[in-house]
Amino acid sequence: MHGYADNKQDHVRRLRRIEGQIRGLQRMVEEDKYCIDILTQVSASNRALQSFALSLLEEHMAHCVAEATAKGGAEAEAKIKEASDAIARLVRS
Amino acid sequence: MHGYADNKQDHVRRLRRIEGQIRGLQRMVEEDKYCIDILTQVSASNRALQSFALSLLEEHMAHCVAEATAKGGAEAEAKIKEASDAIARLVRS
Amino acid sequence: MHGYADNKQDHVRRLRRIEGQIRGLQRMVEEDKYCIDILTQVSASNRALQSFALSLLEEHMAHCVAEATAKGGAEAEAKIKEASDAIARLVRS
Amino acid sequence: MHGYADNKQDHVRRLRRIEGQIRGLQRMVEEDKYCIDILTQVSASNRALQSFALSLLEEHMAHCVAEATAKGGAEAEAKIKEASDAIARLVRS
Repeated sequence: MHGYADNKQDHVRRLRRIEGQIRGLQRMVEEDKYCIDILTQVSASNRALQSFALSLLEEHMAHCVAEATAKGGAEAEAKIKEASDAIARLVRS
Repeated sequence: MHGYADNKQDHVRRLRRIEGQIRGLQRMVEEDKYCIDILTQVSASNRALQSFALSLLEEHMAHCVAEATAKGGAEAEAKIKEASDAIARLVRS
Repeated sequence: MHGYADNKQDHVRRLRRIEGQIRGLQRMVEEDKYCIDILTQVSASNRALQSFALSLLEEHMAHCVAEATAKGGAEAEAKIKEASDAIARLVRS
Repeated sequence: MHGYADNKQDHVRRLRRIEGQIRGLQRMVEEDKYCIDILTQVSASNRALQSFALSLLEEHMAHCVAEATAKGGAEAEAKIKEASDAIARLVRS
């Protein structure tokens, strides 16, 4: 079981809304909407994806990372390193 | 006609790929994939959305903004301001 | 003369404040301040640097880019490409 | 003792380099350097600040967060929440 198991349906619903936003972007391009309005919608989708990622990450730290660090040792270090690398990818993307 | 009219089909294809990535994320959550692997996929989707936005913005500047600044005056200033605000939203999102 | 010439003193003052924030960060590390408080200060410095970049970029577009696009031709295209590349670096950093 | 105590001198050195970059930006503005070259330097400084933040955060998680989660309870939850909030500020700045 993963950290996000309790909120699985929330996460799926949230991702469906983001999928709807991306389909909305396709429609905007097909209907020749104004570029700036499309860009505003892209920023909103990006923020929605980030919020999803941040809530997943918080649950991961509260469960997987916390369990590993409670045991300590190499496994704990590996989990911290893995989470830090994922955070770096998010910060830089 | 907007700046992106010539590449409309490219943009729609690109957005369909991003839509596919978001559906992939839903599947990953539903199939209890490992959090870190989901986060890696979110970073990839964010970068794809950013690339789409940056290419739309470049076309907007090469067409709409360039036309307005060629005419000059208040319309030119308004287009520059509008583009700058969109860039600020992208940088901050 | 560059686009930012009129606001040169404002820009220098703004950068001095950011320099002060960075020295504040050094002091925080030297005085063993709490990590989270240091990170909050880093986010503030990052936002200040971004605001500086965005205002410089707006002036650049309102002057250098607008002048080039008013003339048109290869020079205009080169300026648009150059500005777009700088925007991409900001969005991705 | 904080998580970053072992690397304190490295962190201070790194921040001094960033301070040097910010002073370099002031000189560029004062000497009327080309806007795009200044923006390139801002992106470099932003990335340097981010790298500093990410390494501080990794040490914080490996020490402060790991210690708290080893003990468990409300203190562990509070540390996870606090780290998640700091990560969200970094991702959004």
